[in-house]
Amino acid sequence: MDYFDVVDSRYSHKEKFLSDAVPLDVLEKIAKAGLAAPTGMNSQCVKLVILQNREEVEALCQVVSTDGMLTAPAAIAVLTDTEAYKDSPYNFEMEDYSAAATQMLLAATALGYSSLWLDSPYFNEKEQKEARAVLGASDKYHLRVVLPIGLPDGVGSRREKLPFKARVSYGVMGK
Amino acid sequence: MDYFDVVDSRYSHKEKFLSDAVPLDVLEKIAKAGLAAPTGMNSQCVKLVILQNREEVEALCQVVSTDGMLTAPAAIAVLTDTEAYKDSPYNFEMEDYSAAATQMLLAATALGYSSLWLDSPYFNEKEQKEARAVLGASDKYHLRVVLPIGLPDGVGSRREKLPFKARVSYGVMGK
Repeated sequence: MDYFDVVDSRYSHKEKFLSDAVPLDVLEKIAKAGLAAPTGMNSQCVKLVILQNREEVEALCQVVSTDGMLTAPAAIAVLTDTEAYKDSPYNFEMEDYSAAATQMLLAATALGYSSLWLDSPYFNEKEQKEARAVLGASDKYHLRVVLPIGLPDGVGSRREKLPFKARVSYGVMGK
Repeated sequence: MDYFDVVDSRYSHKEKFLSDAVPLDVLEKIAKAGLAAPTGMNSQCVKLVILQNREEVEALCQVVSTDGMLTAPAAIAVLTDTEAYKDSPYNFEMEDYSAAATQMLLAATALGYSSLWLDSPYFNEKEQKEARAVLGASDKYHLRVVLPIGLPDGVGSRREKLPFKARVSYGVMGK
């Protein structure tokens, strides 16, 4: 699928998914696109856990049950290694996982699937710890976002965007 | 260009650019791809300033001169509106600009151009303020990253990546 068509087609799917399983090679292709994203100083601090079936997704729903995960037949959990930048004056974990998540959302779209950037359920320390336990991830890791993945059950809603000229300037802001 | 080919082709271009001007419609297509990225709660806090020619890029180089910008014939500056989340318990500025930058790096690649995620030159308060002044951006905005854009002068180097299995697990981490 052409890159710009993918960009135009991507949206945040907050509605139901069909129960159809997502083939492992599809999930791996999405993961591979995420890992190809740039990372600060090539840290590659982003780690992924592929949840291949409803049972594995359900285990995460037991920690926090959010609409976006309730019917998802698969998901990819995105974690960062919090020690990756320990010897650096900078820490690019936020940028790194965001770039990876963005490339995975586009990859899912390119393959005909829908997804969603789901992070706020894991902001609280309690849910963060419990979700990490489900994923078998030590305290060294931070669960950043979970991307539910599946075929959409119907057409998902799109949020309205500001016009191009309201967000783009030429040379100096406001021009 | 097919999405997965774009993902495989993108790299961080740290070498010279050719002096060829980048047509405005190319820069606008890249900007449009950036603005199509998801933002937290649809905040759309990301604003862009298109620098269309060497003169405009040079003005930014007067603030901080970094290799990636020295020969760039064009660039896109990515700012966030720091007031966008003022009424929210969350702040997704980092995620929002990172997603937009990622989609623009891919867009540049899809159109045959090279680019680079250049943020550290603007981390210090002095350079941040001076760069904002050049861009005509008030204190309300934060300059997050500048993406130099141009045709690469030769084949840019690629950083080595860890193998897929070193970063991906199935069901639980490490499996």
